[in-house]
Amino acid sequence: MLETPEDGALQAVWWDGDAVGFIDQRALPDALEKRRATSVAEVEAAIQSLAVRGAPAIGVFGAYGVALAERQTSDSEELKRDAARIREARPTAVNLAWAVDRVCRAPDRLLEAQAIHREQLDIDRRIAGAAAELFPASARVLTHCNTGPLATAGEGTALGSIIAASRQGKAVHVYVDETRPLLQGSRLTMFELERAGIEATLIIDAAAAVVMQRKNIDLVIVGADRIARNGDTANKIGTYALAIAAAHHGIPFYVAAPRSTFDFLLASGAEIPIEERAEQEVRNFAGARLANGGAHAYNPAFDVTPAHLITAFVSEYGILRPPYHEALPDLQSRPRLVEMTY
Amino acid sequence: MLETPEDGALQAVWWDGDAVGFIDQRALPDALEKRRATSVAEVEAAIQSLAVRGAPAIGVFGAYGVALAERQTSDSEELKRDAARIREARPTAVNLAWAVDRVCRAPDRLLEAQAIHREQLDIDRRIAGAAAELFPASARVLTHCNTGPLATAGEGTALGSIIAASRQGKAVHVYVDETRPLLQGSRLTMFELERAGIEATLIIDAAAAVVMQRKNIDLVIVGADRIARNGDTANKIGTYALAIAAAHHGIPFYVAAPRSTFDFLLASGAEIPIEERAEQEVRNFAGARLANGGAHAYNPAFDVTPAHLITAFVSEYGILRPPYHEALPDLQSRPRLVEMTY
Repeated sequence: MLETPEDGALQAVWWDGDAVGFIDQRALPDALEKRRATSVAEVEAAIQSLAVRGAPAIGVFGAYGVALAERQTSDSEELKRDAARIREARPTAVNLAWAVDRVCRAPDRLLEAQAIHREQLDIDRRIAGAAAELFPASARVLTHCNTGPLATAGEGTALGSIIAASRQGKAVHVYVDETRPLLQGSRLTMFELERAGIEATLIIDAAAAVVMQRKNIDLVIVGADRIARNGDTANKIGTYALAIAAAHHGIPFYVAAPRSTFDFLLASGAEIPIEERAEQEVRNFAGARLANGGAHAYNPAFDVTPAHLITAFVSEYGILRPPYHEALPDLQSRPRLVEMTY
Repeated sequence: MLETPEDGALQAVWWDGDAVGFIDQRALPDALEKRRATSVAEVEAAIQSLAVRGAPAIGVFGAYGVALAERQTSDSEELKRDAARIREARPTAVNLAWAVDRVCRAPDRLLEAQAIHREQLDIDRRIAGAAAELFPASARVLTHCNTGPLATAGEGTALGSIIAASRQGKAVHVYVDETRPLLQGSRLTMFELERAGIEATLIIDAAAAVVMQRKNIDLVIVGADRIARNGDTANKIGTYALAIAAAHHGIPFYVAAPRSTFDFLLASGAEIPIEERAEQEVRNFAGARLANGGAHAYNPAFDVTPAHLITAFVSEYGILRPPYHEALPDLQSRPRLVEMTY
């Protein structure tokens, strides 16, 4: 199943014999384009261009990328450079670096990449199972960006939880932030919710607060790109504003993320590097110029939500509630749940 | 000057002999298209399509529209119907209804429309003069939507204040929300700031909170479409989220609006009708489909910011601070500042 994606199944990333297969997420929802990365340069380009995106999916993709690199060189120094190049293709998510390092240390790199991929599926199921418990029988949910199968190469984190709650028979209605500038909410989350048969309403990001005020939202659930030891959470730009608005309205704000997203080396969010992307992502869209030519734009891809605005984290180990200075070290000390053998 | 716009001067609306002239704001910033509305239907269409937008500009435009209608019919019942049609072209802003009613009551409708236009210029200057006092010598400002000359047919409200502070020699840097879905921030405010020679940085709406957190913003200033007697304020969708984020960061949040925007008949924001616009404004952009075809969208054009999140109002009568249950009745009781004679 990992080698050849099932027809119709949304599998973001797979090993394709002598290449790494992926869905080019830039083409969605207009087309479901399956592509192959046949070199380290193509792996790097797919990550940097956001053809493959979502912190866990990038981790799985990068792991396969190292396996691909190993097959194309017998020079261990060159392989090290290739791995470093993939590792640094995007700076904010910790999963990529974690997966690349793990594959580099393994005796069989392809088997290790496949193990990471299988673990991701299992982890996503555990996260979704735990998070679905947080949903009332009739749940009005707000989410941001894309955190479904496309984002994790598994079954999704926050969106996986929404889908799991719906499969449990809960009545779920999702308000989806479009998530400017790259519109992962409009393009990907709305697409995944339609496939899952779940009621969804698209909104502009700036409407989230008024939806909280007027639409009886029960909970907000988002994913994460990197979580510091104190619980400060880097995620898609706009998450911080959502968390402030949720706190203002007394709405629970949940972050669903695998343990690999927690970076226990970082004391707080102040230490998380924030990727700034090209100004033209804000200034231009679909070939159209949105602003005058001389306009400057500030385009951080992520923001950091302070831990005190987060009601709980959901990982594959279950639900973590404050105080996080106790809950997160406890998470760090847990034995690995999934130990693959090959 | 009102009859023929000066070359290069940004005049949103003018009387054009036998038609109402206007800049088609949908074409900006690519082109500065001057057009003529030659019938009531064209006046209505220009308002509904947002070719002319901004609460005070719509008021001036609607006033000229009634003068145009009067020249095209001698039937007083038909004129009444024409005036009602213009009055109801958009529901949220109070200026349009106010200006139409005032012109309808006047003995000479064109002279009254021109009086409203001249008053708007004077009012804008007074607002800008008062609001500029709120800016420190070096001011980092955040604003939303477009509230410059294009929005008022005068010199602008919130953006007019920013321009006035800069002209006073203050060092002003403006962060501009792009203002989805119709991007009045990207298209119009960035354009007006460039013309005014003021440093500006464009951001997506979802980045405003992180800009407040990281960029030492001194104040937020926005316009308004309708203000209830208790100070609750309807303005462009996204304003409420901004006000919550400003309060969270302890940043002053100012609303600049003429007295004609205050609707003393409404006890609170709950009574303000909120226009919901077409789903396709969110689902499509520049001919491109942003979401799958079956996607539903919720697209309120405005939201209501509760008075307790507003640090002060600035009108042509000066700065109004809480408690608003005293300040606003005081505003209502003031004599008219500007009494035009013709």
